Amino acid sequence: MTARDGEQPAIRRDVPRAIHAQISEHIRRHIAAGEWPAHYRLRSEPELAAEYGVSRGTIRRALATLIEEGLLRQVRGRGTFVTSTTIEPAIAQKLSTLSEDFAGQGVVTFTEVLECVLISPPRPVAALLDLPAEARVLRLVRLRSTVDGPVALLHNFVRADVAPGIERVDFTQSSLFGVLEDTYGLRIDTARRTFSAEAASPEVASALGLDAGAPVQYLQQVTYLEDDRPVEYSDVWIHSGRLHLTSLLQRR
Amino acid sequence: MTARDGEQPAIRRDVPRAIHAQISEHIRRHIAAGEWPAHYRLRSEPELAAEYGVSRGTIRRALATLIEEGLLRQVRGRGTFVTSTTIEPAIAQKLSTLSEDFAGQGVVTFTEVLECVLISPPRPVAALLDLPAEARVLRLVRLRSTVDGPVALLHNFVRADVAPGIERVDFTQSSLFGVLEDTYGLRIDTARRTFSAEAASPEVASALGLDAGAPVQYLQQVTYLEDDRPVEYSDVWIHSGRLHLTSLLQRR
Repeated sequence: MTARDGEQPAIRRDVPRAIHAQISEHIRRHIAAGEWPAHYRLRSEPELAAEYGVSRGTIRRALATLIEEGLLRQVRGRGTFVTSTTIEPAIAQKLSTLSEDFAGQGVVTFTEVLECVLISPPRPVAALLDLPAEARVLRLVRLRSTVDGPVALLHNFVRADVAPGIERVDFTQSSLFGVLEDTYGLRIDTARRTFSAEAASPEVASALGLDAGAPVQYLQQVTYLEDDRPVEYSDVWIHSGRLHLTSLLQRR
Repeated sequence: MTARDGEQPAIRRDVPRAIHAQISEHIRRHIAAGEWPAHYRLRSEPELAAEYGVSRGTIRRALATLIEEGLLRQVRGRGTFVTSTTIEPAIAQKLSTLSEDFAGQGVVTFTEVLECVLISPPRPVAALLDLPAEARVLRLVRLRSTVDGPVALLHNFVRADVAPGIERVDFTQSSLFGVLEDTYGLRIDTARRTFSAEAASPEVASALGLDAGAPVQYLQQVTYLEDDRPVEYSDVWIHSGRLHLTSLLQRR
């Protein structure tokens, strides 16, 4: 750090404050000042130990404090990173669902079920789900919130012929993919997701607590079973101020 | 089709129009009416042949016409799909670049280089690129357009220490990753991309031909080399009316 920004390390051995706490505080200030932005990778523990002139144990203790505070996170094999202030599910990268990603990141979410009824699918949805116009689909409308407020409005259309009785499931407690896989034994295989920015419609704006016309992240998805039948179509609108999608990509 | 929407197949053998042309026209009408939306997967060739009461060769000829017109596309091992009217690069899924994706889809693009200079990096960029504040980085600002108009504004910051002389490259002709890999022999390995919807700033709006405040798809990226050094940071703003990001995801 000294070499980097020309400051002396802020470690004083002549004050009663523990060295590891001084280091935590020094790092905390870098983050607060925006000098170390979200996703900044800290130097390795041995490098930090050398720079601060302390033992690796002291560095580890300083980092542990910041990890506990949620300012840093460690990724196995990749290092220690500054945490983003927005939630960042990896749903651009793998076919997980928002609820699975939230659970994996330890984010507590609440689900409100706004609609859960069998309907005749709109024609484009019927086509994408490979259904005759007279078929019935589940229309499931949910709002997902964290303690900060609503983060996503989800409209799902699910083939009811492969999941009879699905309209009676309590989706405040169960995830859609979980029910399809565990209750109905369906093997979800692939999905095609499309991402774009949209102006919030009055319905979306009101659900997410935004002004109508505000930018929202829009996802459209068709999910396929292992036997290649489409099983689900969804429209998802995400509050970009509260949640960013993220993807760790490989070149080859 | 007959079974699906209750119409008789629109094939008449008592008119002088070729059967395959009648089938193309019938499919074209389904697409134009929005009954078969983007990404709708057509039934297999044998199924279509049975439904229209014609040979597979006739079906193939009808589909070939629509593929040539750009209304359908065939994906090996997955079938024939209705094409999207917006361009859909898979950059949410793999670490390709817009220019590579455009080339792969046969989309002709034009690149305007608005800036290509060495600068001192802003502090957050310096941190993400693991550089001291006094280092120099390439600031590359490009606007990519298709025949429909601008689709993406790209701000890249590239470490100049690993690519000396990069400010003299003509980026109207060369892609950034291509130059880093081919000219400088760097091995690009991974990138972290974050996706969100933003309101267009005046600069972004003016570049993309949008109103200020209009929703734009925003991507932020840090790219790493094989030896784990960060090499490039970028901000990319995408015109969602002209280009959707897409991702084909696997459940396991």
